[in-house]
Amino acid sequence: MDQVKVGICGLGTVGSGTLRVMSRNAADINARAGRQIIVSHIGARRDRPGCDTGDIRVSRDIFEVVRDPEVQILVELVGGTDVARELVLQAIESGKHVVTANKALIAEHGNELFEAALNQGVALAYEAAVAGGIPIIRALREGLAGNRISWIAGIINGTSNYILTEMAQGREYAEVLKEAQALGYAEADPTFDVEGIDAAHKLVILGSIACRIPLQFDKVYTEGISHLSPRDLRYAAELGYRIKHLGIARRNNGGVELRVHPTLIPEERLIANVDGVMNAVLVEGDAVGPTLYYGAGAGGEPTASSVIADIIEIARQVDLEPSARTPYLGFEYGEATDLPVLPIEDCITSFYLRMTVQDRPGVLSAIARIFGESGISIEALIQKEAKAGQQEVPIVLITNEAREGDLIKAFDQIQALDQVIGPVVKIRVENLDG
Amino acid sequence: MDQVKVGICGLGTVGSGTLRVMSRNAADINARAGRQIIVSHIGARRDRPGCDTGDIRVSRDIFEVVRDPEVQILVELVGGTDVARELVLQAIESGKHVVTANKALIAEHGNELFEAALNQGVALAYEAAVAGGIPIIRALREGLAGNRISWIAGIINGTSNYILTEMAQGREYAEVLKEAQALGYAEADPTFDVEGIDAAHKLVILGSIACRIPLQFDKVYTEGISHLSPRDLRYAAELGYRIKHLGIARRNNGGVELRVHPTLIPEERLIANVDGVMNAVLVEGDAVGPTLYYGAGAGGEPTASSVIADIIEIARQVDLEPSARTPYLGFEYGEATDLPVLPIEDCITSFYLRMTVQDRPGVLSAIARIFGESGISIEALIQKEAKAGQQEVPIVLITNEAREGDLIKAFDQIQALDQVIGPVVKIRVENLDG
Repeated sequence: MDQVKVGICGLGTVGSGTLRVMSRNAADINARAGRQIIVSHIGARRDRPGCDTGDIRVSRDIFEVVRDPEVQILVELVGGTDVARELVLQAIESGKHVVTANKALIAEHGNELFEAALNQGVALAYEAAVAGGIPIIRALREGLAGNRISWIAGIINGTSNYILTEMAQGREYAEVLKEAQALGYAEADPTFDVEGIDAAHKLVILGSIACRIPLQFDKVYTEGISHLSPRDLRYAAELGYRIKHLGIARRNNGGVELRVHPTLIPEERLIANVDGVMNAVLVEGDAVGPTLYYGAGAGGEPTASSVIADIIEIARQVDLEPSARTPYLGFEYGEATDLPVLPIEDCITSFYLRMTVQDRPGVLSAIARIFGESGISIEALIQKEAKAGQQEVPIVLITNEAREGDLIKAFDQIQALDQVIGPVVKIRVENLDG
Repeated sequence: MDQVKVGICGLGTVGSGTLRVMSRNAADINARAGRQIIVSHIGARRDRPGCDTGDIRVSRDIFEVVRDPEVQILVELVGGTDVARELVLQAIESGKHVVTANKALIAEHGNELFEAALNQGVALAYEAAVAGGIPIIRALREGLAGNRISWIAGIINGTSNYILTEMAQGREYAEVLKEAQALGYAEADPTFDVEGIDAAHKLVILGSIACRIPLQFDKVYTEGISHLSPRDLRYAAELGYRIKHLGIARRNNGGVELRVHPTLIPEERLIANVDGVMNAVLVEGDAVGPTLYYGAGAGGEPTASSVIADIIEIARQVDLEPSARTPYLGFEYGEATDLPVLPIEDCITSFYLRMTVQDRPGVLSAIARIFGESGISIEALIQKEAKAGQQEVPIVLITNEAREGDLIKAFDQIQALDQVIGPVVKIRVENLDG
């Protein structure tokens, strides 16, 4: 069997998980690759307790791995975008294939990196960058390649999904976040996860593959979950919905919607029942209809599973004629379409609204008039009776689908009504029917 | 762009669906393949109403397509195993790559066909043969290639799943079958679907890839759904379970279980909520944990989606060095393990039992004694009170997991008790926890 030599940069959770799985499953992996895959060089600033590197060469300077002429595949697991970008660019320049789990790197610098890799004729693989162990990049780029993808909706951040799952039990956001931090599901600074930035990184990659457009991270509309109240999850449940934090890519009249936000979805959808830290991606293709991919979106070994899938594929094709490789984003360089990414105002959405109003005659008719004049219809409504002695009642409603800009105009008029007390809560709704 | 010429044999639901999708999505497909893919020859015994073959050459003798030197990829969609086997063998002999959606052909003749294809250095792709539009072959062979797969459990026959979904509403098997036939979900002779043979064809393929063993269709334990009663679906629901017809492949102490049968699964599992004609495959890998793949398991365009995925991959790699291709079953020829397929007696299972017993003291203790002496424990039990004037009561129970042969021995003793009236109903139970 031919040998293929791999260098791994970064020995954190994923790096050490990759080493462990490659060693444990070596016989299977070599039988599948048809090559003997050998980790010959590790770059890590420090040792990792409990991680056995055996007699593998370890360099403190990760760039030593790039300079090692024996290394044919460089695995970038250092994270971040500065050093990682430099490392990957140098690896490509020196003719090495690259595997990365770094969603920020691909989302923000992918166009540049793919072009560099194309010029050098090397592979740049990133299955692990989106939805951890779920082989969603292969599904989109290869398994569904015959389809025109109409839309994708994914639970692609486990931290947010864990928090929302717990909030559905009536718990407050801040309390659950603290627990998630204690459990290691959320970072000390949770911004990337709970404000949707991590999900936006992943979504932009999925959207590019699905809609044949270049990566455009700066154009993703991004909204997190930190402003949600368990009250809204409860009302949603009363209406037959669950609230999930979704990344959505959708073709829409000559454009592409790319948006990340909390979303009400009908409880009977399979994806509405994906709970805890698990991820799932729902993909609607014109030929195949709806398909769903579910699994662990993070963690050392689940992410290693995808890293190793990429290593095996490249090892098998280490000397391949570049044009025989699946293109980085699933379509040939130069074959991107010029579909624009739409501003959020031009997206087609519907909304759940919750407002507190004075318990006086005429409030509901004032709201109904504004909707009527805007051509918006109400699909569902809950109005509770005022409790004894209270002058305020909550109204919860769901609108029909319309251009978001038009909906927001009407919502602003409702917000301006005297009878409406405090801010109107607005959460988008998606039906997700195939 | 280079051109690649495709011949399609068979113009039924899948063949005409393939033509339609390839024409509708031609621009996307060519951008993804990096080649212009042209259907240049169709073999079909008769015209298909509504299917526009344009100016494509059509031969009534499907073997004309094999003899056409222009055709580089032959797509076998004629079904059956006799003519299809001959067609595929001749195509391979003449150096053509082959794509097929034919599960029976791969399950029963795959070892022979793969060896022939290997000797000729051509691809033989069959994504469409298992679970229709779900890219499960790619997921197992490539996306999860770094894992040791512990088990697979799949809803891989849409007809059976449709019937069970309706029976869960209290309807009788025979009535639902008739309806399924009227809707076109079941054939006039439904044996293949409802007796589990179609599922066994698909399971043996999944099991070979997952467990690195040759195809051994004759060793699959196969049981259908025609003996089920809606009563059992109702009792299962009372206990917190759904009944699904599953194909299960599992590593077990130096062997592989391959079995197809109705199965109680906990209602909170995602796969327990896959209803109607949809398919889903749950895969447990040692690194990735549980992953699930869901979508349409049959139908013209969903199956075409997988056929076209294979065409695109082969078109891109039409002149590829064979050793750079993913091996047919995911592992290199000669790298199969000699894990035996276990007889059903050696499988590890637990059972749901339903029996009717005389309403007399001592019945339950007689049953409990038999279980106790066999070392079997009861995990759950429902005993209903006798209705006024009745001398018979039903007992429903779930056992713990044990070697099936040992369980059956105890069940036979229970069956032999005087107080047990009529046959004891036995349905396997799987916990499916990751």
